[in-house]
Amino acid sequence: MNSKKIGILGGGQLGRMLVEAASRLNITVTILDIPVDSPAKQIQATSTHIHGDFKDPLKIQELAQNVDILTIEIEHVNTEILESLFSEKNIEIHPYPFTIRIIQDKFLQKTHLSQNEIPVVDFIDIPDRKSLNIAVEKFGYPLMLKSKILAYDGRGNYVINSEDEITEALRTLGNFKNPLYAERWTPFVKELAVMVIRNVDGVIKSYPVVETVHKENICHLVIVPAQVNGVILGRAKEIAEKSIQTLKGAGIFGVEMFLMKNGHVYVNEIAPRPHNSGHYTIEACETSQYENHIRSILNMPIGSTSLKVPAAAMINVLGKSENIQETLSPCVEALTTPGATIHLYGKRECRKGRKMGHITVVADSISQLYKRITPILNINDENDTSTTTLSNNIQPLVGIIMGSDSDLPTMKACAEVLKLFDVPFELSIVSAHRTPMRMVEYAKSAHVRGLKVIIAGAGGAAHLPGMVAALTPLPVIGVPVKGKILDGVDSLYSIVQMPRGVPVATVAINNSTNAGLLAIRHLGAFIPSYLQKMQEFMERQESEVLAKVDKLDQIGWENY
Amino acid sequence: MNSKKIGILGGGQLGRMLVEAASRLNITVTILDIPVDSPAKQIQATSTHIHGDFKDPLKIQELAQNVDILTIEIEHVNTEILESLFSEKNIEIHPYPFTIRIIQDKFLQKTHLSQNEIPVVDFIDIPDRKSLNIAVEKFGYPLMLKSKILAYDGRGNYVINSEDEITEALRTLGNFKNPLYAERWTPFVKELAVMVIRNVDGVIKSYPVVETVHKENICHLVIVPAQVNGVILGRAKEIAEKSIQTLKGAGIFGVEMFLMKNGHVYVNEIAPRPHNSGHYTIEACETSQYENHIRSILNMPIGSTSLKVPAAAMINVLGKSENIQETLSPCVEALTTPGATIHLYGKRECRKGRKMGHITVVADSISQLYKRITPILNINDENDTSTTTLSNNIQPLVGIIMGSDSDLPTMKACAEVLKLFDVPFELSIVSAHRTPMRMVEYAKSAHVRGLKVIIAGAGGAAHLPGMVAALTPLPVIGVPVKGKILDGVDSLYSIVQMPRGVPVATVAINNSTNAGLLAIRHLGAFIPSYLQKMQEFMERQESEVLAKVDKLDQIGWENY
Repeated sequence: MNSKKIGILGGGQLGRMLVEAASRLNITVTILDIPVDSPAKQIQATSTHIHGDFKDPLKIQELAQNVDILTIEIEHVNTEILESLFSEKNIEIHPYPFTIRIIQDKFLQKTHLSQNEIPVVDFIDIPDRKSLNIAVEKFGYPLMLKSKILAYDGRGNYVINSEDEITEALRTLGNFKNPLYAERWTPFVKELAVMVIRNVDGVIKSYPVVETVHKENICHLVIVPAQVNGVILGRAKEIAEKSIQTLKGAGIFGVEMFLMKNGHVYVNEIAPRPHNSGHYTIEACETSQYENHIRSILNMPIGSTSLKVPAAAMINVLGKSENIQETLSPCVEALTTPGATIHLYGKRECRKGRKMGHITVVADSISQLYKRITPILNINDENDTSTTTLSNNIQPLVGIIMGSDSDLPTMKACAEVLKLFDVPFELSIVSAHRTPMRMVEYAKSAHVRGLKVIIAGAGGAAHLPGMVAALTPLPVIGVPVKGKILDGVDSLYSIVQMPRGVPVATVAINNSTNAGLLAIRHLGAFIPSYLQKMQEFMERQESEVLAKVDKLDQIGWENY
Repeated sequence: MNSKKIGILGGGQLGRMLVEAASRLNITVTILDIPVDSPAKQIQATSTHIHGDFKDPLKIQELAQNVDILTIEIEHVNTEILESLFSEKNIEIHPYPFTIRIIQDKFLQKTHLSQNEIPVVDFIDIPDRKSLNIAVEKFGYPLMLKSKILAYDGRGNYVINSEDEITEALRTLGNFKNPLYAERWTPFVKELAVMVIRNVDGVIKSYPVVETVHKENICHLVIVPAQVNGVILGRAKEIAEKSIQTLKGAGIFGVEMFLMKNGHVYVNEIAPRPHNSGHYTIEACETSQYENHIRSILNMPIGSTSLKVPAAAMINVLGKSENIQETLSPCVEALTTPGATIHLYGKRECRKGRKMGHITVVADSISQLYKRITPILNINDENDTSTTTLSNNIQPLVGIIMGSDSDLPTMKACAEVLKLFDVPFELSIVSAHRTPMRMVEYAKSAHVRGLKVIIAGAGGAAHLPGMVAALTPLPVIGVPVKGKILDGVDSLYSIVQMPRGVPVATVAINNSTNAGLLAIRHLGAFIPSYLQKMQEFMERQESEVLAKVDKLDQIGWENY
């Protein structure tokens, strides 16, 4: 389909997964990297790999002579020689060397983004000691001091908490041997990331928004879909796509972002290549970030970036020590975890903190995902903070709403059932008559926010379920709440007798338990773990009655 | 995690995909096959591959000396030398050479299965011309004459339709130079297949039942889940697992079966290795057949064999001619198909009928799957019969039942809505009072058969929806059908006022349209293509009313 030969600067795990994707398309890849057996070279048996530094101009030129198109799997390459090959020799290079150069220098990157009206955290150049005082004056403490170049996985960052720490910070970052800049401290609530793919013509597609958890500044865990509401998802996607629109050349880009408490989203940094936060795409998306990078630089159609599973996580396997067996203990756990796929990178030496591999876990729901990943996360650290926060980090599948707090005593039973079945839900007051605009907003955004079913309780005129059903494409379950007169028949008729075109799934008067059970049946039809729980519930219900049968038999009806 | 070295006899596409899986687990594989650049050798850069025939005893011995464990990706190997290595030199070989030998000889294989009470089609040995007459006498025409050995992809089979064709059949199959046997002609309605994995201890797990479509005796298309009901699925799974229970040694096995019109399932043949009908597992299952083969022979835990997507298909990319571009046209189409993944095998020469690659397509439903694969199938053959039959080959997602045919006029609207939305459904009469056992059977089997929601219409005492809900874990939508007296209020109360524990989603009296729309909303919460259709429907509904607004404005209320 495409006979162009690709040359990649860098032969690490990202290169390895690019080679894997290329092989499936019968595309030959030549790797430039020093180790003869670098991860990427191991899995394509060609004699053309080049053993040399991806910063070495001669080696880069040699690579360019042997292939049709150059790309990178690491941005710390020699952009000068790439720029001259690109502009003087017309060598195809993606992304463009100029783009790589902007990204290499984090200060230049932030300036570029800021000039293009992409929201970034306030930052300032620190050419000398004196300018640091200006930064402190502007941003206060804590202050983030950063190297402009060669900074990744937390290297080249220093958090200055007070004036006392300035000297040590400067010493650690090389006393201006490398250029520095400072950023306002950013107390984010979450880190989000989006992989964005850009083709040769500049057409853009993005992958779902993920949530990343870092540990000692290294990516530890990725959760997809990010457990934030649809509005935030939309914002993050838009900002990520807009960022990549400003950069030239084809390929996949990783956009890392901060989510603030007020819902603001800032771009933290961009990677002009496949990214750790996009590993999950191999198992969880219709086309992986690696295949789409290969496709985009070859000007082939970009594949679908949609999730093909409801939820996925990626856990990095980082060297714990030089002992590979100890390091691989999460993988041993993953071997018995349903939905887990292990990727080891073939690195010969294990070192503390080195990325040795990763584990992707897919699941039928976020709840099942968390159950699956917790034992893997706990292997190396029983008190892994990412697992303890997981349970609080879950978007609801069911929304319970009621017209008034006076309905809560009735609707509580429904919440209790959902809790019993471990179904993530939200509960709020939405009144059709007193908060009509809130109702419109709630119903219109429900499916975007990830809800699968809405339970609405209302009494009397009981318009809420029907009005919500008129505004959402999701199934709405209506609970007629009994008022003081008419025995709830008024509510029942209002809820059930909907006109043709807009259905409400009505349950018995005041029977919000059944509304909860119905919602779980909806989920269970598609989420096997809930179907199983419903079957167990029905069996339990049956044996409870059978126990009463026994009791009645034993003690007789007179004594019952 | 495991430092054993694996040697594989054969280096074709199956070996290639085994190597891919092994690389991810950092497991080194050595391939024995003649071509220096055979598909499997291309993707593991080790200097240890052996270039030689996998039937050559010396080469097999050389391989055994260099690795810890031997396995195969083709069964036409030299089992004599394998058996001596296994029994005399204690070399680990999976599956056991004896198992491979049984499978190599199709007559021996059928005899073995038959002795173990696995259902197979009637067969008879044909040692000479005379015995062929006995076969004709026993089985009649058409008669299937087969080579016992080296028969695959239709090679070595001959269908004899009348006595006139006997001489030609014998000539084609080598006039007894190779041993022959005959089988009773089997007018199957479908071909099914199951991949079964067996670990070193004999523990067995199986993948979902798939449906295979052959074209000129070569596997053309695989659909999963097979579009047959749950009873057949269970039967096929049980027979496949029982078959592999009779064979010794670890590894993955492919079990190909015939489904007859009366529901009987016969084993056609077994492959003691990864199989074409299991390619789909790479993208569609939690662990692929390739990884599970590697894991099982190394005595590592077997990974989950569950589907992680609702539906998937595999299309073989067979050489159309020596022209590779022409052959790859389905792949070019697949590049723009959402959910499609292309696997090319790196074969240097393209020949008519040669397996050059395959395409896997995943989808959110069988309906979406068929829409996605049809253009790919049509590329090479506009009249591809497999695509025209697809639309008839689909299991229902929604079950519509009613207590009596007198309810049909009311329930028809519901069927029409489902048809409009392209939702596969079934419709039947199930009466709670007149066919109680049928109702129990229907409700109990509903989720097993693949239904996601049941719509039940009933009038008067109207027990059907509630009784069905008491027997199934699926959501049940109840339609109160209006009788001659009481205006349907009797039905409404009977259906909606369910006791705590068993919910019925009740819609308005006689409003089966809304029942259909509610069912579609259920599906849409999990199947994006239906959510989109529901949104479009609601927009259409809105604009229809807005058109009336316009009309009213234009012509005035007096003339409306």
